[in-house]
Parts: sequence; structure tokens; C-alpha cells
Amino acid sequence: MIIFKNEFVEIVREKSHIPWLKIFTVQKYKELTDCPDDLRQKLYLCIEIVEKTMRDYYNPIKINIAIFGNYVPHLHIHVMARFEEDGFFPESMWGKKQKETNLSLPDEKPFLKQLTQKLAKAF
Amino acid sequence: MIIFKNEFVEIVREKSHIPWLKIFTVQKYKELTDCPDDLRQKLYLCIEIVEKTMRDYYNPIKINIAIFGNYVPHLHIHVMARFEEDGFFPESMWGKKQKETNLSLPDEKPFLKQLTQKLAKAF
Repeated sequence: MIIFKNEFVEIVREKSHIPWLKIFTVQKYKELTDCPDDLRQKLYLCIEIVEKTMRDYYNPIKINIAIFGNYVPHLHIHVMARFEEDGFFPESMWGKKQKETNLSLPDEKPFLKQLTQKLAKAF
Repeated sequence: MIIFKNEFVEIVREKSHIPWLKIFTVQKYKELTDCPDDLRQKLYLCIEIVEKTMRDYYNPIKINIAIFGNYVPHLHIHVMARFEEDGFFPESMWGKKQKETNLSLPDEKPFLKQLTQKLAKAF
């Protein structure tokens, strides 16, 4: 599900039991250092806005960020809110499942609304 | 093994069969958005220098970057050079081992020398 798009970035909701967003560049690049400087700065700003909004809304125990793209080398950045009660904590979301998830999170809609407003304002 | 340190960051070699460095802030922060702006900019610059130097020296198939810290919430950034022949590719280094490693890499010393020179110059 696309939750924000402009001429530079597209932000997608990953299907998961945790808040997990993926920030794609609209124009395809393989690596961070392939991006033009101004686009890379915009990506950093997006990471910060997503992280801050997740922290304020969900109060996660930790934010996890990852840039892999080993299967599809189109630069994208994962930003995840982690909780002690999520099924993989304290392992990464790419690690081994640790336990059954026992997570009660507030409605996602206000979070997404706050986030898209902040992103629209920042660009 | 510490390969670079100044008043802002400390860069450590992770024990691994792939080139894998961890960039720590010297002063402890939990999250990227807890850092002062100028320190966060320095971290971004470090990521870019490490990534670029790894790409130039090792010609990896992909760079992987991760900020987790679920076990030890002292902000640090993993930067890894990935190869088709590494044991975990195309999974993340936190995923399931895919195969035996069959990797022949050049001597690490010149890489570390180039990297520390670039870092010293950038700060």
C-alpha cells in the first residue's frame, strides 16, 4: 500500500504485524552513493521524519533501519518500529522468529495521517 | 578491532568473512533522531565514505546497511559489502545461511588504509 508519493520518493506500508515502512526512490538507483546528493539528503530527511513520527506515536522500544536490496537492487530503506512483544524481538525482522506476537497497537490511521502531513510539509 | 576513532565516531571491524564495519557514536544515543543534527550529518558522511570505499575496493554485488541495536541500544550502523559467493547472499546477514562461503577477497590492509585516510580528511 502506497502511503505517500511525490516526484522523489515513494513510501510503502510493508505487510507486517509491526509498523514497517519502506522508502523507495522514484528514479531507480542501486546504492545510496549512486543517488544525486540532493536526493540522498531527501532520503535522510524521510528516514528522520518516519522514525520521529513512529517514536512519537507508538513509543517503540527501538527503531530498526535497513538498506538491503539483495533481491531487487532498487534502493529502498526499511524503517521499522520494534516492540518487546513483537514476534522477532530482540532479533532483527530478518532473523529467526522468537515467540508468538502479543502486540496491541493503536489504530494506524492517525499515524499515517500525521506522517503524510509532515512529509508533505517537508518537501 | 577499532579501525578509526575521533571525538565523534568509532569504527569497528566486525568479525566476519565479508567486509563488515560498524560505525558507533562516541557519545551514546539510542536512536538516529536522538543525535544532535551535526553528529547525524557526520554519521551520514561516514556511511557514504565507507560504502564508496568498499565499492571501489571490493566491487561487491550490493552494499547492505543496518541500524538495529535491539540488544545494546547504543546507536551504531552496520555497513557490509555483499557478494554472490558469501554464505548468506541473497539473504541478509541476519537471515538463514544459504550455502558454504566461497569468497576470495583481496588483502584488507590497503582497503583499511584508504578508508582511514579518507575519514581523517573528511573530519
